[in-house]
Amino acid sequence: MKKLENYVVTIPNFPEEGVMFRDVTSILESAEGLKLSIHELMLRLKDVEFETIAGAESRGFIFGMPLAYNKGKNFIPVRKAGKLPRETVKAEYELEYGTAAIEIHKDSIKPGQRVVFVDDLLATGGTAEAAIKLIESLGGIVVKALFLMELKGLNGREKLKGYDVDCVISYEGK
Amino acid sequence: MKKLENYVVTIPNFPEEGVMFRDVTSILESAEGLKLSIHELMLRLKDVEFETIAGAESRGFIFGMPLAYNKGKNFIPVRKAGKLPRETVKAEYELEYGTAAIEIHKDSIKPGQRVVFVDDLLATGGTAEAAIKLIESLGGIVVKALFLMELKGLNGREKLKGYDVDCVISYEGK
Repeated sequence: MKKLENYVVTIPNFPEEGVMFRDVTSILESAEGLKLSIHELMLRLKDVEFETIAGAESRGFIFGMPLAYNKGKNFIPVRKAGKLPRETVKAEYELEYGTAAIEIHKDSIKPGQRVVFVDDLLATGGTAEAAIKLIESLGGIVVKALFLMELKGLNGREKLKGYDVDCVISYEGK
Repeated sequence: MKKLENYVVTIPNFPEEGVMFRDVTSILESAEGLKLSIHELMLRLKDVEFETIAGAESRGFIFGMPLAYNKGKNFIPVRKAGKLPRETVKAEYELEYGTAAIEIHKDSIKPGQRVVFVDDLLATGGTAEAAIKLIESLGGIVVKALFLMELKGLNGREKLKGYDVDCVISYEGK
Protein backbone atom coordinates (compact mmCIF):
# COMPACT_ATOMS: atom_id res chain seq x y z
CA MET A 1 0.00 0.00 0.00
CA LYS A 2 1.25 3.46 -0.92
CA LYS A 3 2.22 5.75 1.94
CA LEU A 4 0.45 9.09 2.31
CA GLU A 5 3.63 10.98 1.39
CA ASN A 6 3.59 9.35 -2.03
CA TYR A 7 0.29 11.04 -2.89
CA VAL A 8 1.67 14.55 -2.29
CA VAL A 9 2.81 16.34 -5.45
CA THR A 10 5.50 18.98 -4.88
CA ILE A 11 5.37 22.05 -7.15
CA PRO A 12 8.58 24.13 -7.17
CA ASN A 13 8.26 27.95 -7.17
CA PHE A 14 4.53 28.17 -6.39
CA PRO A 15 2.96 30.55 -5.40
CA GLU A 16 6.30 32.37 -5.59
CA GLU A 17 9.97 31.80 -6.47
CA GLY A 18 11.82 29.61 -3.98
CA VAL A 19 8.75 27.98 -2.38
CA MET A 20 8.27 24.20 -2.64
CA PHE A 21 4.49 23.92 -2.66
CA ARG A 22 3.20 20.68 -1.13
CA ASP A 23 -0.11 20.03 -2.84
CA VAL A 24 -2.78 18.24 -0.81
CA THR A 25 -5.30 18.21 -3.64
CA SER A 26 -3.27 15.42 -5.23
CA ILE A 27 -4.01 13.28 -2.15
CA LEU A 28 -7.73 13.92 -2.56
CA GLU A 29 -7.72 13.07 -6.26
CA SER A 30 -7.11 9.45 -5.26
CA ALA A 31 -9.90 7.72 -3.32
CA GLU A 32 -7.20 5.67 -1.51
CA GLY A 33 -5.14 8.77 -0.72
CA LEU A 34 -8.20 10.56 0.60
CA LYS A 35 -9.19 7.63 2.81
CA LEU A 36 -5.65 7.26 4.12
CA SER A 37 -5.37 10.96 4.96
CA ILE A 38 -8.54 10.88 7.05
CA HIS A 39 -7.53 7.60 8.73
CA GLU A 40 -4.15 9.06 9.69
CA LEU A 41 -5.82 12.14 11.19
CA MET A 42 -8.43 10.02 13.02
CA LEU A 43 -5.68 7.88 14.54
CA ARG A 44 -4.28 11.00 16.18
CA LEU A 45 -7.64 11.72 17.82
CA LYS A 46 -8.06 8.24 19.24
CA ASP A 47 -7.36 9.16 22.86
CA VAL A 48 -8.39 12.81 22.73
CA GLU A 49 -11.52 13.92 24.59
CA PHE A 50 -13.17 16.78 22.75
CA GLU A 51 -16.53 18.14 21.62
CA THR A 52 -15.65 20.28 18.61
CA ILE A 53 -13.52 20.40 15.46
CA ALA A 54 -12.56 23.92 14.34
CA GLY A 55 -11.27 24.04 10.76
CA ALA A 56 -9.55 26.94 8.99
CA GLU A 57 -10.88 28.20 5.64
CA SER A 58 -10.67 26.61 3.24
CA ARG A 59 -8.46 23.50 3.32
CA GLY A 60 -9.11 23.01 7.03
CA PHE A 61 -12.76 22.50 5.99
CA ILE A 62 -11.66 19.65 3.73
CA PHE A 63 -9.92 17.69 6.47
CA GLY A 64 -11.92 18.88 9.47
CA MET A 65 -15.41 17.93 8.37
CA PRO A 66 -14.89 14.17 7.84
CA LEU A 67 -13.32 14.07 11.31
CA ALA A 68 -16.27 15.89 12.87
CA TYR A 69 -18.82 13.69 11.11
CA ASN A 70 -17.10 10.39 11.82
CA LYS A 71 -16.39 11.25 15.44
CA GLY A 72 -19.95 12.51 16.01
CA LYS A 73 -18.78 16.03 16.89
CA ASN A 74 -19.75 19.49 15.72
CA PHE A 75 -17.75 21.72 13.38
CA ILE A 76 -16.80 25.38 13.69
CA PRO A 77 -15.62 27.08 10.50
CA VAL A 78 -12.81 29.57 11.09
CA ARG A 79 -13.45 31.96 8.21
CA LYS A 80 -11.79 34.90 6.53
CA ALA A 81 -13.22 38.18 7.85
CA GLY A 82 -16.60 39.25 6.50
CA LYS A 83 -17.95 35.83 5.52
CA LEU A 84 -19.85 34.79 8.64
CA PRO A 85 -23.37 36.21 8.90
CA ARG A 86 -23.88 36.37 12.68
CA GLU A 87 -22.01 38.13 15.49
CA THR A 88 -18.32 37.19 15.42
CA VAL A 89 -15.02 37.60 17.23
CA LYS A 90 -12.08 38.55 15.02
CA ALA A 91 -8.29 38.19 15.21
CA GLU A 92 -5.63 39.69 12.97
CA TYR A 93 -2.32 38.07 12.21
CA GLU A 94 0.80 38.95 10.29
CA LEU A 95 1.54 37.80 6.78
CA GLU A 96 4.85 38.25 5.01
CA TYR A 97 3.40 41.50 3.63
CA GLY A 98 0.53 43.06 5.58
CA THR A 99 -2.04 41.33 7.78
CA ALA A 100 -5.00 38.98 7.45
CA ALA A 101 -8.05 38.56 9.68
CA ILE A 102 -10.13 35.53 10.62
CA GLU A 103 -13.40 35.17 12.52
CA ILE A 104 -15.60 32.67 14.31
CA HIS A 105 -19.18 33.07 15.43
CA LYS A 106 -19.44 34.38 18.97
CA ASP A 107 -22.00 31.75 19.94
CA SER A 108 -20.00 28.85 18.48
CA ILE A 109 -17.89 28.12 21.56
CA LYS A 110 -19.05 27.84 25.18
CA PRO A 111 -16.71 28.20 28.18
CA GLY A 112 -14.96 24.90 28.87
CA GLN A 113 -15.70 23.46 25.42
CA ARG A 114 -12.87 21.19 24.27
CA VAL A 115 -11.78 21.99 20.72
CA VAL A 116 -9.41 20.37 18.22
CA PHE A 117 -8.08 22.86 15.67
CA VAL A 118 -7.52 21.31 12.21
CA ASP A 119 -5.75 22.61 9.12
CA ASP A 120 -3.99 21.05 6.14
CA LEU A 121 -0.64 22.72 6.71
CA LEU A 122 1.43 24.07 9.59
CA ALA A 123 3.69 26.69 8.00
CA THR A 124 4.53 29.83 10.04
CA GLY A 125 1.71 29.02 12.48
CA GLY A 126 0.10 32.45 12.10
CA THR A 127 -3.39 31.23 11.22
CA ALA A 128 -3.35 28.54 13.90
CA GLU A 129 -2.16 30.98 16.58
CA ALA A 130 -4.89 33.47 15.66
CA ALA A 131 -7.58 30.75 15.58
CA ILE A 132 -6.50 29.46 19.00
CA LYS A 133 -6.66 33.01 20.39
CA LEU A 134 -10.25 33.31 19.11
CA ILE A 135 -11.33 29.98 20.58
CA GLU A 136 -9.77 30.86 23.93
CA SER A 137 -11.32 34.34 23.91
CA LEU A 138 -14.71 32.60 24.10
CA GLY A 139 -13.58 30.28 26.91
CA GLY A 140 -12.80 27.27 24.72
CA ILE A 141 -9.93 24.88 25.50
CA VAL A 142 -7.72 23.88 22.58
CA VAL A 143 -6.80 20.27 23.37
CA LYS A 144 -4.94 19.67 20.10
CA ALA A 145 -3.75 21.42 16.95
CA LEU A 146 -3.78 18.83 14.18
CA PHE A 147 -2.26 19.21 10.70
CA LEU A 148 -1.83 16.90 7.76
CA MET A 149 1.58 18.38 6.90
CA GLU A 150 4.17 20.69 8.42
CA LEU A 151 7.07 22.64 6.95
CA LYS A 152 9.55 22.45 9.81
CA GLY A 153 11.82 25.14 8.36
CA LEU A 154 9.15 27.78 9.07
CA ASN A 155 9.12 27.08 12.83
CA GLY A 156 5.35 27.04 13.22
CA ARG A 157 5.66 24.95 16.39
CA GLU A 158 7.43 27.87 18.09
CA LYS A 159 4.24 29.95 17.85
CA LEU A 160 2.16 27.07 19.24
CA LYS A 161 4.37 26.30 22.23
CA GLY A 162 2.45 24.78 25.14
CA TYR A 163 -0.15 23.17 22.85
CA ASP A 164 -0.40 19.57 21.73
CA VAL A 165 0.71 19.94 18.11
CA ASP A 166 0.46 16.90 15.84
CA CYS A 167 1.31 16.57 12.15
CA VAL A 168 0.98 13.48 9.94
CA ILE A 169 3.78 14.38 7.48
CA SER A 170 6.80 16.54 8.35
CA TYR A 171 8.93 18.20 5.67
CA GLU A 172 12.34 19.55 6.66
CA GLY A 173 12.36 22.66 4.45
CA LYS A 174 10.10 25.65 3.90
CA MET B 1 -35.89 14.54 16.67
CA LYS B 2 -35.43 18.02 15.21
CA LYS B 3 -35.74 18.39 11.45
CA LEU B 4 -32.79 19.75 9.50
CA GLU B 5 -34.70 22.96 8.69
CA ASN B 6 -34.86 23.76 12.39
CA TYR B 7 -31.08 24.05 12.59
CA VAL B 8 -30.92 26.74 9.90
CA VAL B 9 -30.73 30.29 11.26
CA THR B 10 -32.10 32.96 8.91
CA ILE B 11 -30.39 36.36 9.00
CA PRO B 12 -32.37 39.17 7.36
CA ASN B 13 -30.48 41.72 5.22
CA PHE B 14 -27.14 39.86 4.99
CA PRO B 15 -24.89 40.32 3.08
CA GLU B 16 -27.08 43.11 1.71
CA GLU B 17 -30.50 44.76 2.20
CA GLY B 18 -33.41 42.57 1.16
CA VAL B 19 -31.58 39.22 1.26
CA MET B 20 -32.72 36.52 3.70
CA PHE B 21 -29.43 34.72 4.41
CA ARG B 22 -29.86 31.01 5.24
CA ASP B 23 -26.93 30.15 7.47
CA VAL B 24 -25.58 26.61 7.23
CA THR B 25 -22.93 27.14 9.90
CA SER B 26 -25.71 26.96 12.49
CA ILE B 27 -26.39 23.38 11.33
CA LEU B 28 -22.72 22.49 11.82
CA GLU B 29 -22.56 24.01 15.30
CA SER B 30 -24.78 21.16 16.46
CA ALA B 31 -23.29 17.65 16.30
CA GLU B 32 -26.83 16.33 15.64
CA GLY B 33 -27.48 18.92 12.93
CA LEU B 34 -24.17 18.11 11.26
CA LYS B 35 -24.84 14.37 11.29
CA LEU B 36 -28.37 14.85 9.96
CA SER B 37 -27.16 17.09 7.11
CA ILE B 38 -24.66 14.48 5.92
CA HIS B 39 -27.19 11.65 6.30
CA GLU B 40 -29.73 13.56 4.21
CA LEU B 41 -27.15 14.16 1.47
CA MET B 42 -25.97 10.52 1.58
CA LEU B 43 -29.56 9.30 1.18
CA ARG B 44 -29.72 11.17 -2.13
CA LEU B 45 -26.63 9.29 -3.39
CA LYS B 46 -27.96 5.86 -2.48
CA ASP B 47 -28.71 4.73 -6.03
CA VAL B 48 -26.21 6.93 -7.87
CA GLU B 49 -23.22 5.33 -9.56
CA PHE B 50 -20.26 7.69 -9.48
CA GLU B 51 -16.51 7.88 -8.86
CA THR B 52 -15.96 11.48 -7.78
CA ILE B 53 -17.37 14.25 -5.62
CA ALA B 54 -16.59 17.77 -6.86
CA GLY B 55 -17.18 20.46 -4.21
CA ALA B 56 -17.23 24.24 -4.70
CA GLU B 57 -15.04 26.48 -2.54
CA SER B 58 -15.57 26.81 0.27
CA ARG B 59 -18.85 25.53 1.70
CA GLY B 60 -19.01 22.79 -0.92
CA PHE B 61 -15.82 21.47 0.71
CA ILE B 62 -17.68 21.24 4.02
CA PHE B 63 -20.46 19.04 2.67
CA GLY B 64 -18.60 17.32 -0.13
CA MET B 65 -15.71 15.79 1.79
CA PRO B 66 -17.69 13.66 4.30
CA LEU B 67 -19.64 12.27 1.33
CA ALA B 68 -16.45 11.41 -0.55
CA TYR B 69 -14.85 9.79 2.50
CA ASN B 70 -17.88 7.79 3.57
CA LYS B 71 -18.68 6.63 0.05
CA GLY B 72 -15.02 5.70 -0.61
CA LYS B 73 -14.73 8.16 -3.51
CA ASN B 74 -12.21 10.84 -4.41
CA PHE B 75 -12.73 14.60 -4.08
CA ILE B 76 -12.08 17.39 -6.57
CA PRO B 77 -11.97 20.90 -5.12
CA VAL B 78 -13.51 23.50 -7.44
CA ARG B 79 -11.52 26.56 -6.39
CA LYS B 80 -11.53 30.30 -6.96
CA ALA B 81 -9.04 31.24 -9.70
CA GLY B 82 -5.35 31.34 -8.74
CA LYS B 83 -5.47 28.92 -5.79
CA LEU B 84 -4.65 25.61 -7.45
CA PRO B 85 -0.94 24.95 -7.99
CA ARG B 86 -0.96 22.68 -11.05
CA GLU B 87 -2.30 23.11 -14.58
CA THR B 88 -5.99 24.05 -14.51
CA VAL B 89 -9.01 24.69 -16.67
CA LYS B 90 -10.94 27.86 -15.85
CA ALA B 91 -14.52 29.10 -16.32
CA GLU B 92 -15.94 32.56 -15.76
CA TYR B 93 -19.47 33.26 -14.68
CA GLU B 94 -21.64 36.29 -14.11
CA LEU B 95 -22.28 37.80 -10.71
CA GLU B 96 -24.79 40.57 -10.04
CA TYR B 97 -21.92 43.02 -10.57
CA GLY B 98 -18.95 41.78 -12.62
CA THR B 99 -17.72 38.22 -13.03
CA ALA B 100 -16.01 35.50 -11.00
CA ALA B 101 -13.79 32.64 -12.13
CA ILE B 102 -13.32 29.09 -10.86
CA GLU B 103 -10.82 26.37 -11.71
CA ILE B 104 -10.16 22.66 -11.41
CA HIS B 105 -6.94 20.78 -12.05
CA LYS B 106 -6.67 19.57 -15.61
CA ASP B 107 -5.62 16.08 -14.51
CA SER B 108 -8.43 15.73 -11.96
CA ILE B 109 -11.06 14.33 -14.34
CA LYS B 110 -10.65 11.60 -16.94
CA PRO B 111 -13.02 11.11 -19.89
CA GLY B 112 -16.08 9.14 -18.82
CA GLN B 113 -15.53 9.79 -15.09
CA ARG B 114 -18.87 10.04 -13.27
CA VAL B 115 -19.01 13.10 -11.02
CA VAL B 116 -21.46 14.39 -8.40
CA PHE B 117 -21.23 18.18 -7.96
CA VAL B 118 -21.90 19.30 -4.35
CA ASP B 119 -22.50 22.72 -2.84
CA ASP B 120 -24.31 24.07 0.18
CA LEU B 121 -26.68 26.34 -1.71
CA LEU B 122 -28.36 26.52 -5.12
CA ALA B 123 -29.06 30.22 -5.65
CA THR B 124 -28.77 31.62 -9.21
CA GLY B 125 -26.92 28.46 -10.29
CA GLY B 126 -23.98 30.42 -11.74
CA THR B 127 -21.26 28.58 -9.83
CA ALA B 128 -22.80 25.16 -10.47
CA GLU B 129 -23.23 25.85 -14.17
CA ALA B 130 -19.59 26.97 -14.48
CA ALA B 131 -18.34 23.96 -12.49
CA ILE B 132 -20.32 21.55 -14.65
CA LYS B 133 -18.89 23.19 -17.77
CA LEU B 134 -15.35 22.62 -16.41
CA ILE B 135 -16.01 18.98 -15.54
CA GLU B 136 -17.51 18.35 -18.96
CA SER B 137 -14.65 20.14 -20.73
CA LEU B 138 -12.38 17.37 -19.39
CA GLY B 139 -14.78 14.64 -20.50
CA GLY B 140 -16.43 14.10 -17.11
CA ILE B 141 -20.12 13.18 -16.79
CA VAL B 142 -22.11 15.08 -14.17
CA VAL B 143 -24.55 12.49 -12.88
CA LYS B 144 -26.01 14.71 -10.15
CA ALA B 145 -25.89 18.26 -8.78
CA LEU B 146 -26.58 18.01 -5.06
CA PHE B 147 -27.27 20.91 -2.70
CA LEU B 148 -28.22 21.15 0.93
CA MET B 149 -30.52 24.13 0.31
CA GLU B 150 -32.08 25.96 -2.61
CA LEU B 151 -33.65 29.40 -2.96
CA LYS B 152 -36.36 28.67 -5.51
CA GLY B 153 -37.04 32.35 -6.21
CA LEU B 154 -33.65 32.68 -7.91
CA ASN B 155 -34.43 30.00 -10.55
CA GLY B 156 -31.12 28.17 -10.30
CA ARG B 157 -32.75 25.02 -11.70
CA GLU B 158 -33.35 26.86 -14.99
CA LYS B 159 -29.58 27.10 -15.54
CA LEU B 160 -29.13 23.40 -14.72
CA LYS B 161 -31.86 22.06 -17.03
CA GLY B 162 -31.17 18.54 -18.22
CA TYR B 163 -29.21 17.61 -15.08
CA ASP B 164 -30.35 15.62 -12.07
CA VAL B 165 -30.66 18.44 -9.51
CA ASP B 166 -31.42 17.49 -5.91
CA CYS B 167 -31.79 19.74 -2.85
CA VAL B 168 -32.48 18.69 0.74
CA ILE B 169 -34.26 21.92 1.81
CA SER B 170 -36.18 24.22 -0.55
CA TYR B 171 -37.00 27.81 0.34
CA GLU B 172 -39.64 29.62 -1.71
CA GLY B 173 -38.01 33.08 -1.70
CA LYS B 174 -34.65 34.55 -2.65
